[in-house]
Order: sequence, then structure tokens, then C-alpha cells
Amino acid sequence: MGALMRREAAEKVWAQLRPAADGLVPAVAVDGPDGPVLMLAYMDREAFLATMAAGRMHYRSRSRNELWLKGATSGHFQDVRRVRVDCDGDALLFEVDQTGAACHTGARSCFYREAGLLAGEGEDA
Amino acid sequence: MGALMRREAAEKVWAQLRPAADGLVPAVAVDGPDGPVLMLAYMDREAFLATMAAGRMHYRSRSRNELWLKGATSGHFQDVRRVRVDCDGDALLFEVDQTGAACHTGARSCFYREAGLLAGEGEDA
Repeated sequence: MGALMRREAAEKVWAQLRPAADGLVPAVAVDGPDGPVLMLAYMDREAFLATMAAGRMHYRSRSRNELWLKGATSGHFQDVRRVRVDCDGDALLFEVDQTGAACHTGARSCFYREAGLLAGEGEDA
Repeated sequence: MGALMRREAAEKVWAQLRPAADGLVPAVAVDGPDGPVLMLAYMDREAFLATMAAGRMHYRSRSRNELWLKGATSGHFQDVRRVRVDCDGDALLFEVDQTGAACHTGARSCFYREAGLLAGEGEDA
């Protein structure tokens, strides 16, 4: 189990956030203190409070429109280490201990696809 | 100037994305290859293509509803090093060279606020 937060404290953090019109806040999960970005998904109030109560990442599934404990079916849980809120309260950053792969494809990170770029300096584009 | 992409290639990358109903895709900027997350903002097609054409991060400002070259007023540009797309095409990850502070508060990262957590293991919560 990861680090968690008492209900009252979690309610206060959520109250400082500015969810979008659909009630969601994007949540970025990074792999440990220096790790790469694993995934980006969304939390509503219920998912945030469930995450803070359990010390494990819960998201709001936009496609299934339901609360989603990450790892519930795969066993690939994300245990919370730290939580950060951005300057204007519209995004969350979680440092987690990732069990197995974050991505449903089996990749460690969902961001495994790289777009081809040209070198910028002096390049004739 | 950072790495950039020919217009045709950038159009192809954008065509693989699945923007939300408002036409926006969240874009996470990280500081260099191993750096921390600097910020999360949004791109529409215009901002993505401008970013890829210039090798510098452009976003769609949701509050001002306009194209926004990051650093246009502050000089705190973000030069693109790499671009990654997530597994389901609904988020972008940019590795950038950040000039100065990413945050308008002067903090290097917008995620400078940490929420207090309890240690999880064996904690009575």
C-alpha cells in the first residue's frame, strides 16, 4: 500500500482544485522520484478520494464512465508516494510505485510511441 | 530552436490523436531526458502544428481562448527535444529544454505544491 491521506485532508486538497466542466482533473503518474511519465488519466472527486483513502491510484474511466482502480484486473497497481498540485489547481501529479506495466499493451509507460523529429538547429525545414 | 517536424509529418501525427470534444489534447512538458514534469497544458491542432513548425512549445490558452507561444512574454521558451504519444492517442508528452522557469510564479515547475501524505504501511488511518 502506498502513502495515503486522511479523508478530511483529502477533501481540502480537492476543494483547492479547479475541475473542468465535466468534473475531471487530469492526473499524471510518474514512476518513482526520478522516473519517466507512465500515463495520464483523469480523476473526479470520487476517484481522488478513493486514491487518497487507499494509497493506490484510482481514476475515472471516461470510456466506461466508472470508478477504476488501476490494477484491479491486471494486478498492476500504482502505489502513491507523493502528490503534487499545479500552480492553478487544474492538474495533479502523482509519484507512484508501479507494479508491472502501466500500459495495457504491456509497455512500462503508455508513452512508448515516439514521433519522428528533425534536428532543429540549422535544419532546412 | 528545438527539434521540429515537417508539416506533412505533423499533420499525420495529429490525425492519429483523439482530441476531446473541445478539440484539445493535454500536453505534458518534462524537463530534459530525465527531468521532472514542468507543466500540463493543452494543445489544439493549431497549437500542435505551430509547435512542430517552430520546435518551440505552443499551447491553446483555455482562459484566453487563443494560441499561446510559451515564453512569448516571459522569454521562458520551451524548445522541443522529443515528442511522445500515448497508447490511446489522447495525450502528448514533450521532452523540452526549458529556458528559465516553466511556472508564471517563478518556480521551475508548476507542480511545486506538495499535498501532505501519511506513510501507508501499517499506518492507522
